[in-house]
Amino acid sequence: MDAALSRHLDVVKGDLIRMTQLVGSAMNRATQALLDADLAMAESVIAADAQIDILASDVEEQCLDAIAQDSPGSSELPELIGALRIAASLERMGDLAEHVAKQARLRYPRLSIPQELRGTFAEMGGLAEAIVSKTGSVIATRDVALAADIGRHDAEVDRLHRELFTIVLSSSWPHGVESAIDVTLLSRYYERYADHAVSVTRRVVTIVTGEPYVGVSL
Amino acid sequence: MDAALSRHLDVVKGDLIRMTQLVGSAMNRATQALLDADLAMAESVIAADAQIDILASDVEEQCLDAIAQDSPGSSELPELIGALRIAASLERMGDLAEHVAKQARLRYPRLSIPQELRGTFAEMGGLAEAIVSKTGSVIATRDVALAADIGRHDAEVDRLHRELFTIVLSSSWPHGVESAIDVTLLSRYYERYADHAVSVTRRVVTIVTGEPYVGVSL
Repeated sequence: MDAALSRHLDVVKGDLIRMTQLVGSAMNRATQALLDADLAMAESVIAADAQIDILASDVEEQCLDAIAQDSPGSSELPELIGALRIAASLERMGDLAEHVAKQARLRYPRLSIPQELRGTFAEMGGLAEAIVSKTGSVIATRDVALAADIGRHDAEVDRLHRELFTIVLSSSWPHGVESAIDVTLLSRYYERYADHAVSVTRRVVTIVTGEPYVGVSL
Repeated sequence: MDAALSRHLDVVKGDLIRMTQLVGSAMNRATQALLDADLAMAESVIAADAQIDILASDVEEQCLDAIAQDSPGSSELPELIGALRIAASLERMGDLAEHVAKQARLRYPRLSIPQELRGTFAEMGGLAEAIVSKTGSVIATRDVALAADIGRHDAEVDRLHRELFTIVLSSSWPHGVESAIDVTLLSRYYERYADHAVSVTRRVVTIVTGEPYVGVSL
């Protein structure tokens, strides 16, 4: 591989890892803003999303330059195309964290979620953090064994998502329609966030192994 | 441009136009299934989604082949990369139509939406159809003047989406929490569908003009 291509791939990889850190931090802080009705925290997540978008554009530019100038071979080309897709998924994960923060801001100074569901959302936030941190590791180390962990975390997020549906739809739900919709949309943001992390992981596994990943719930 | 590249670009363009037709038909039929609680129609939308996914894979393969084998120049390369992104958006639009169909199936034989909101969802379905049909035209003809129409339709979908929120949150909403959540999620599927069509249009405009599109609400 020539030096320019290797440099482009390094920059792209660094950008993608940095993106996983930023979207992880964004969801983590959005969850805090949600759990504590913390307006300043919510605003900081919303303001920081631009940085994620800039990194996504940078990845796209680097990949295009590498494809156009470095004559990538049959092993590097799928990697460059994969990086474009991964950047798009990570950008969307940043948007979803921003959606959570905007929901917290919308209901401020009230909490967006009833007190008794704070534990469930804290758990979803913790799973989101674990998923994105492992996704960053998969990109950095290519240790595809982590994919199984990510799949299990994702299944857990799906379970909590279904559980929240059951709760807001039970006849004893005391918080009214607005709150039920808030909970449902928020829960969906976490669920989509985890799905995108799974799709990033799938891409990496395909690049590393050359085959579609068919492991646990991925 | 060499003949192989030109052939690859033609196949990709044909696949993308076909995808707009399929995701348009899917959302159209999903809307019918929703409005009429038509189970067979819903099942047909769900079954047909695989065909859309296959076309998306075909676009990806063709683009990779073209990039690897045809030495695309600085004008064709962004087009090939753009096509990858467009295929991903269209695939997601197919998924959203499938979500609408699955919602119709979930509540069958009941209607998923209250009688008095059928008109609003019919209108959203009509706008989705108009948007995707014009998006197909933009891809086919590169007539970027259609972008302004698409932006206006999208703004209209956003307005209906907000209107539905207001309705389900009003104190006089008589249909309970489950129905409010169904309406909210369904409305969000149409809104995301329109957003993806806008993002496809933006990509085409950028390819054609070489500049980001900054027109009406795009």
